[in-house]
Amino acid sequence: MNKNKFLLTLMATILVFTGSNTFAEEKVVKWKLAMHWPQTLAPFAWTVLRFSENVEEMSGGRMTIRVDDSNKHKAAAGILDMVGDGQYEMGHTASYYWKGKDINTMPFTTMPFGMTTAEQDAWYYYGGGEALAQEVFSKHNVISHQGGSTGNQMGGWFRKEINSAEDLKGLKMRIPGFAGEVMSELGVAVTNLPAGELYTALERGTIDALEWVGPGMDINMGFHKVAPYYYTGWHEPATDLQFLINQDAWDELPADLQAIVKSAIIVSKSSMYWENYAMSSEAWSKMGVDYPNIKVKSFPPELVAQMKAANAKLIAETSAKDPMFKKIIDSQSEFMAKAREWTKISDYLYLKDNID
Amino acid sequence: MNKNKFLLTLMATILVFTGSNTFAEEKVVKWKLAMHWPQTLAPFAWTVLRFSENVEEMSGGRMTIRVDDSNKHKAAAGILDMVGDGQYEMGHTASYYWKGKDINTMPFTTMPFGMTTAEQDAWYYYGGGEALAQEVFSKHNVISHQGGSTGNQMGGWFRKEINSAEDLKGLKMRIPGFAGEVMSELGVAVTNLPAGELYTALERGTIDALEWVGPGMDINMGFHKVAPYYYTGWHEPATDLQFLINQDAWDELPADLQAIVKSAIIVSKSSMYWENYAMSSEAWSKMGVDYPNIKVKSFPPELVAQMKAANAKLIAETSAKDPMFKKIIDSQSEFMAKAREWTKISDYLYLKDNID
Repeated sequence: MNKNKFLLTLMATILVFTGSNTFAEEKVVKWKLAMHWPQTLAPFAWTVLRFSENVEEMSGGRMTIRVDDSNKHKAAAGILDMVGDGQYEMGHTASYYWKGKDINTMPFTTMPFGMTTAEQDAWYYYGGGEALAQEVFSKHNVISHQGGSTGNQMGGWFRKEINSAEDLKGLKMRIPGFAGEVMSELGVAVTNLPAGELYTALERGTIDALEWVGPGMDINMGFHKVAPYYYTGWHEPATDLQFLINQDAWDELPADLQAIVKSAIIVSKSSMYWENYAMSSEAWSKMGVDYPNIKVKSFPPELVAQMKAANAKLIAETSAKDPMFKKIIDSQSEFMAKAREWTKISDYLYLKDNID
Repeated sequence: MNKNKFLLTLMATILVFTGSNTFAEEKVVKWKLAMHWPQTLAPFAWTVLRFSENVEEMSGGRMTIRVDDSNKHKAAAGILDMVGDGQYEMGHTASYYWKGKDINTMPFTTMPFGMTTAEQDAWYYYGGGEALAQEVFSKHNVISHQGGSTGNQMGGWFRKEINSAEDLKGLKMRIPGFAGEVMSELGVAVTNLPAGELYTALERGTIDALEWVGPGMDINMGFHKVAPYYYTGWHEPATDLQFLINQDAWDELPADLQAIVKSAIIVSKSSMYWENYAMSSEAWSKMGVDYPNIKVKSFPPELVAQMKAANAKLIAETSAKDPMFKKIIDSQSEFMAKAREWTKISDYLYLKDNID
């Protein structure tokens, strides 16, 4: 090799070297996320958009997550499948929406008469819940993470007062999850309508009642203007949304980006709870002043007892058919028995002393 | 320049280029953190150690945080100063320990008869609390972040039953924060002892009572073996620890590492709450079986009323002297008035229906 040829080879080597180096530095992992919600739905959609921003910031731009809302992908009912088969690397949804596909996804959102937010979070992260979630979701080629807690949800808006189980018979109501099954057992005609149609349906009497979330989210929907009876909750004491991740995409992710995604999810999950709590506190104080005709009611004790009985019956029936369902419910029940005793002598007695 | 000389120059350039590039890739930001606790104190110390691990993982090793525990730095009482002057880039402590140095650091930990954990978190992150914390801590050249919630704390272990304010007079008790001021106002001789001396002091009657945290942390201290009256809480409804960051070190940190540190803090803060809730649930169910002589008591209503009055008096006095204290307390009170109404119709009524 003469000097000229050597020089050329060397320069080519440098170009390849610096070229590949630049490539390594600039290689961006680009993911897509399908969320269940339109991007106007606060705070659900905000939570997802901030998650995406946080991942980009923490990774210094080495990972981006494009968020498609329900108006873009037009397949909210298909998110679990789309993430499982890799059309989207991630999804944001509520796992109880998949009860028809796999009943065992449901208890990770919330259960009627189940744990409160603090109790459920303690169970999920430090009481065996997370491992059970992975056992369930791995069948769908998906990893599930808790993705944003709404906290305790209100029992819903009713056009008429409910004084007994008799008043529920034939009532048309939008109510999802296991609570929908319980209401159905009590004779309610449970319907599902897109969010955009709910107000009109309630106003015109196409439905008689609906549950949505709580004051912070309900106020923008305007339900309080047409259905003044606002019932306290029994059915969704700790609703949590879920981030889903395609297992193959996850396995290919470098360890540092895995750590970033995991932490960004926990930040979003916690922040949504705090934000929604603040939103509900503000909205409720506003609603009470602007609409003094709103009547906050709790269902009568006899009816609550009937709801509990129907819930226990349905849980027993489902557990008898499905060992995995039994395993999850047993885990939740055992943990709740202990946690509720702690809740009682801590937050509950404190509040009892400082309310009324 | 002849070809040989050009070649040598080129090779030198390559060496410099690859050398500096390697250097850039391997540059590690090395921080030190002083925590208030011995490293055996679960879950406080675990929370900090996991925070450090998480930052290292998320940054792919580009940032490390060495954690020194109280046995190493031997200056728990100096953490705010040590972080402010840059001896340590970070600290982990409870801001109410600094009440003697700056009374306004105190309300970010918790206040007697104040907000619950959910309410305080909503206030801190979405109700103006965080901006007030920065206003207070910036005077100390420090940024403060909420760093781990214990949730509602128990009112403490007492050797004898407390039936009236008379029983408190002259009682020797370990109790920190604003609650210590309230107890002092009621005639309690408030003392402070190192954690390691508490059990012996309580056993020998050097002190008559103490408050620590809750069942999950108290069980390892053994207080239940020598002081069987376990009082429910009024004084620390939402205790949160704090991560402190030196302002100059923060300003020098690249944006991606700033985002990583911020998220890792929120992950630690939330996780400690969930973990401590699980620990207290487990410990309480165990304590009740192993030590059936433990008597859970609430202070009599007349005494609680006297505590509330003393608390209100001290708050009014401090507010009159310090406009910043007034600003923080007003912000908390206004938020709490709204949030408590929401707590009442959500978690409280739900628990009321499902307890007893």
